[in-house]
Amino acid sequence: MGTKKNVKTADHELLSLRRVAIDTYRENVAYLHRECELYRAEGFQALSKVLIESDSHRIHALLNVVDDTAIVAPGELGLAEQAFDQLGLGEGTAVRVDHAEPPASMDAVRRKIGGEPLRLEDYRAITRDIVANRYSKMEMAAFLVASGQSGLDREEILFLTRAMTESGERLHWHEPLVVDKHCIGGIPGNRTTMLVTPIVAAHGTLMPKTSSRAITSPAGTADTMEVLAEVELSPGTMHKVVRRERACLAWGGTAKLAPVDDILIAVERPLGIDSQGQMVASILSKKLAAGSTHLLLDIPVGPSAKVHHMREALHLRKLFEYVGDRLGLHIEVIITDGGQPIGRGIGPVLEARDVMAVLHNDPDAPQDLRQKALRLAGRILEFDPDVRGGSGYVMARDILDSGRALAKMQAIIEAQGKQTERFEPGHLTHEIKAPRNGVVSAIDNYQMSKIARLAGAPMDKGAGVDLLKKLGDPVKKGESLYRIHAEFPADFNFASTLANNNSGYRIGDEVAAEGPPP
Amino acid sequence: MGTKKNVKTADHELLSLRRVAIDTYRENVAYLHRECELYRAEGFQALSKVLIESDSHRIHALLNVVDDTAIVAPGELGLAEQAFDQLGLGEGTAVRVDHAEPPASMDAVRRKIGGEPLRLEDYRAITRDIVANRYSKMEMAAFLVASGQSGLDREEILFLTRAMTESGERLHWHEPLVVDKHCIGGIPGNRTTMLVTPIVAAHGTLMPKTSSRAITSPAGTADTMEVLAEVELSPGTMHKVVRRERACLAWGGTAKLAPVDDILIAVERPLGIDSQGQMVASILSKKLAAGSTHLLLDIPVGPSAKVHHMREALHLRKLFEYVGDRLGLHIEVIITDGGQPIGRGIGPVLEARDVMAVLHNDPDAPQDLRQKALRLAGRILEFDPDVRGGSGYVMARDILDSGRALAKMQAIIEAQGKQTERFEPGHLTHEIKAPRNGVVSAIDNYQMSKIARLAGAPMDKGAGVDLLKKLGDPVKKGESLYRIHAEFPADFNFASTLANNNSGYRIGDEVAAEGPPP
Repeated sequence: MGTKKNVKTADHELLSLRRVAIDTYRENVAYLHRECELYRAEGFQALSKVLIESDSHRIHALLNVVDDTAIVAPGELGLAEQAFDQLGLGEGTAVRVDHAEPPASMDAVRRKIGGEPLRLEDYRAITRDIVANRYSKMEMAAFLVASGQSGLDREEILFLTRAMTESGERLHWHEPLVVDKHCIGGIPGNRTTMLVTPIVAAHGTLMPKTSSRAITSPAGTADTMEVLAEVELSPGTMHKVVRRERACLAWGGTAKLAPVDDILIAVERPLGIDSQGQMVASILSKKLAAGSTHLLLDIPVGPSAKVHHMREALHLRKLFEYVGDRLGLHIEVIITDGGQPIGRGIGPVLEARDVMAVLHNDPDAPQDLRQKALRLAGRILEFDPDVRGGSGYVMARDILDSGRALAKMQAIIEAQGKQTERFEPGHLTHEIKAPRNGVVSAIDNYQMSKIARLAGAPMDKGAGVDLLKKLGDPVKKGESLYRIHAEFPADFNFASTLANNNSGYRIGDEVAAEGPPP
Repeated sequence: MGTKKNVKTADHELLSLRRVAIDTYRENVAYLHRECELYRAEGFQALSKVLIESDSHRIHALLNVVDDTAIVAPGELGLAEQAFDQLGLGEGTAVRVDHAEPPASMDAVRRKIGGEPLRLEDYRAITRDIVANRYSKMEMAAFLVASGQSGLDREEILFLTRAMTESGERLHWHEPLVVDKHCIGGIPGNRTTMLVTPIVAAHGTLMPKTSSRAITSPAGTADTMEVLAEVELSPGTMHKVVRRERACLAWGGTAKLAPVDDILIAVERPLGIDSQGQMVASILSKKLAAGSTHLLLDIPVGPSAKVHHMREALHLRKLFEYVGDRLGLHIEVIITDGGQPIGRGIGPVLEARDVMAVLHNDPDAPQDLRQKALRLAGRILEFDPDVRGGSGYVMARDILDSGRALAKMQAIIEAQGKQTERFEPGHLTHEIKAPRNGVVSAIDNYQMSKIARLAGAPMDKGAGVDLLKKLGDPVKKGESLYRIHAEFPADFNFASTLANNNSGYRIGDEVAAEGPPP
């Protein structure tokens, strides 16, 4: 009987590493042939986690059993693309496979399921295990539901934010004022960041903006900015751009800021569970890791926005303020109208078109997008101690009207690298018509997002929805309400079918706004 | 722009079905090539669920994206083994792929996460969607955690039990007294069912016993019975055996009783979450579906049993009684000593050996197994209105001592089909020795189970642990406490290493039982 050491290094228990060309998206999967002599796949439990290691590298993975030597042969250990990349070893490397212990921090998750509040050390252990890929999707779902259900108290949200901030890299700008803005989302077309950033930077305030790509929405700021410029900047390039232009509009993924957040979001979104505590920790950990000192937070309120009631928005504001104050991030919250999409375009190319129209002071540019961007930019300008309270809006308007914002945007685009590919709105189009005469009385944000996504946004840059009518506009029967753009027939059909079944628009009587007749 | 119907039947959107030889265990997985022209894998979201259908068949599956035409080519749709079998169509069949809506009943799960009690209709919708494989593992985890955390009230447990019972087939025996027994588990070697069933059937009481295979334990009754006889009986064979012998000892899987339970357990166990409500519903739905009228429930209590305290056992008893009374199942609960494994063997072959020794009235047979079986059988015999209260134990002992229980067991084995393969204890053995002189003062059920499992039980019938010393036995330093049996070197090393690191035994001073010296 050997000791642990001897067991592990026995030559006959090594398997040859093989890359299996399957994309399993954020879940490490290992493939073992059912007839694998040494480990005999049956000895490992179905759904069980295994530890795969060489002398220097190790990862955890979920086991799938294979009956086809074309995928993996008995003496081999297959790893799906993500797991293979994460392990970082070449094909043919000899690896060992062992039973993986469940992550130690699942004990804390089970305590949370039991209704116990957790401590900072618990949240640190959980985020460490998640970042190390020791959690399966099921285990992450358990953590998310447990912290969503009994809820996290304010202290716990603080602990979670701190632990998430510590889970990755941190940027340092060595300046006393580093501003950021964030919208809690749910409003399609709401691309104010691409206006606010050049306005603020033109004033001279530092705004090194990192944004996400869309996960469940038709476009994130990174997706839309990519229509104009490179957004996947190395940390070195990003610093250079920011030093030169006082701003950037980059994708946050390369910077590895609060990576645990990206992992959790990939589970949270498909489950459709929304926990306030998770949201606060998710947003603030990203901002803290990005080195921000001042944050303007936009909470849109509306019947099809993420937040439906003013009461809820106020509660959320208090939570953000509580955590921000304790972690050294100054937060101002602005509550905005989330009653309909902002601007006209939904989808990267169409949104970029709107943004550039506003920057060019085009008289046909969407006025709601312009006004909202000016309001937000004005508040951020007032973070500057030298700017007099109340004068931010006018300053922002002057910067925009004078063309200085456009010049700054062009400089940022040049610095990041102008997009070489030329994107156009998708050539497959379909217009949805008004079913009757009347006035647009409601536009469903969810439905418009869904149509734009099915049309191919954000993957197909030109796909999306172009709104031709907005709230309050009078319409005639048969007049077009909006136009779907797609690049591929299958997506075009999915989106058109959905829109034909439910347009997302409600057309009311012209008098309806004053209430039904008695 | 076509209607939904036209979109769906367009020939160019059909894919050719292909079986992918990967075992994904209770999660349907579909494989689409990244370059698939029509659907272009990127249009479907990562982790998204797709609906796969022909004109007559449909299933839901989780999407993996493939970059290797050897696994799946661009015009093909691959399905993992389970999904392929479930869809039930041949390779090359033309199928359509569509975006799958999340299961409608996830709304109820989200209400449960929000702390709301659910109604019978909600539980019915959830179990229907789970049985139809519309839930991903993440979604099931969300349901389990949500019902574990805020807890289910008594009414909800009743609703869930009812919904789970309705989720599959039901057996009907057309007799007023159909008995069953169940142990809530956690005690290795506790194979009383294989003694109780022949004793009770020898008396003439109907006991059509269906049992599970082990999921996280080293052996289920079905695994151990399989050492002696066929256990995978068709519903027809099972009825024939029961009509002839008044009993069977079959695996419950073929009967499709409360199938939602098997699906949930596959998620619950690896997560290590244990909800009383889920446990009650899981056990009682199986018994109700199996057509039982009277159930004896064994709740072992001990520091390393599932239930640690008498208080908890009593609370559980009330829950079982409440639900049983309302669903027409008479339940009696017996609380037993869960302080150590029962019998000597842990693992199918070793446990079958113990059972047969008791049936043969072998003087070396483990007395604790014999006594516990007699106690349980006695209580079940008293379910018979013709048996006088208090006389069951003596009747059971007479049936066992007279050889009638052995004869009945042999008849059941013959009727089910004698096992043709001959199983022996694993030939690789390793003995764990006492580290000092003293008395066995504790045996950890968890640890003994884990060692037996790593040794290969229940997959390798001969693998497991043979206990040579039990609680209270005096031992000398170097004397063997137990023997590990395994069939394969890798498993043998895993188990031996674990046992060498932590034997699961505590050896105390001979006086320790009377407390430490002052």
